Amino acid sequence: MTVMANNTALDEAAAPPPDTPVDLGPLPDLLGYALRRAQLAVFQDFHHAMEAEDIRTAQFSVLEVLKHNPGLRQTQVSFALGIKTTTFVPLFDELERRGLPERRPIAGDRRAKGLFLTALGQATLARLEALAATHEARFVSRMGPAGKAHLLGLLHRLADRAFDPDLG
Amino acid sequence: MTVMANNTALDEAAAPPPDTPVDLGPLPDLLGYALRRAQLAVFQDFHHAMEAEDIRTAQFSVLEVLKHNPGLRQTQVSFALGIKTTTFVPLFDELERRGLPERRPIAGDRRAKGLFLTALGQATLARLEALAATHEARFVSRMGPAGKAHLLGLLHRLADRAFDPDLG
Repeated sequence: MTVMANNTALDEAAAPPPDTPVDLGPLPDLLGYALRRAQLAVFQDFHHAMEAEDIRTAQFSVLEVLKHNPGLRQTQVSFALGIKTTTFVPLFDELERRGLPERRPIAGDRRAKGLFLTALGQATLARLEALAATHEARFVSRMGPAGKAHLLGLLHRLADRAFDPDLG
Repeated sequence: MTVMANNTALDEAAAPPPDTPVDLGPLPDLLGYALRRAQLAVFQDFHHAMEAEDIRTAQFSVLEVLKHNPGLRQTQVSFALGIKTTTFVPLFDELERRGLPERRPIAGDRRAKGLFLTALGQATLARLEALAATHEARFVSRMGPAGKAHLLGLLHRLADRAFDPDLG
């Protein structure tokens, strides 16, 4: 390819037409890029599946943690899920406004509140779990249960801080 | 477990102590949750690796696309990478302010500009690619090249819209 400096015509001609397929270079072979694209596809389907219930992934995760750990403090929930406090507070406020969780006093700790699902929250979560199971099955059908098990093992290996203490 | 309604003492006692391990329930077995945790761990390491260069994942992706497709229009770049226009514009403006890409006129299209790497952008990207390779190798060492190849195949299967036309 001949390089012609100061040639305006060349500069102008160098642009590919709008319908040219885009070459992503090394990106599809990088774990971070591939993880992000897969995560976006799965989250998009999750939000589509939960549309009628108006629930997003992080809200679903919070409700599950409260179901399995009634009375947890806010900081414990947000830390366990890797959600920043500044993100968690409005997220939880919104769920509380809808009557799904509630805060109650904790014995021996006058300053903290324990977070609990309400009866409405428990009933709602049962419906959400059924929708989540259908959503999950859609993606498992692409690789089979063995493929999913293998994938989860590899993903947990990536997320495991024990492999790299510097990450902590 | 006995349920005692209207018992304040029970309500207060029900909260687990602050150092109780959190039970994540079904979350670790859901693809979306496992993908998100893995992606966050890999992105966190990427940003750590790129700290001295002050480059984030999406900025790196944009520079790679410009390297492999000089003259692409902004809408083509953002669409190919799945970045919303409202996110892409400030991201690109910041890169342009740092002199890494530039906009040039396109022949036959008076309204659009083509995006190109500058010489500084090309030199910078060469350094970033070396850092990205070291970062990538850290995670590949957790599963070996065969594990990475298997993982990429499964991730691409999740991201592939061809499996579910409704997602498009």
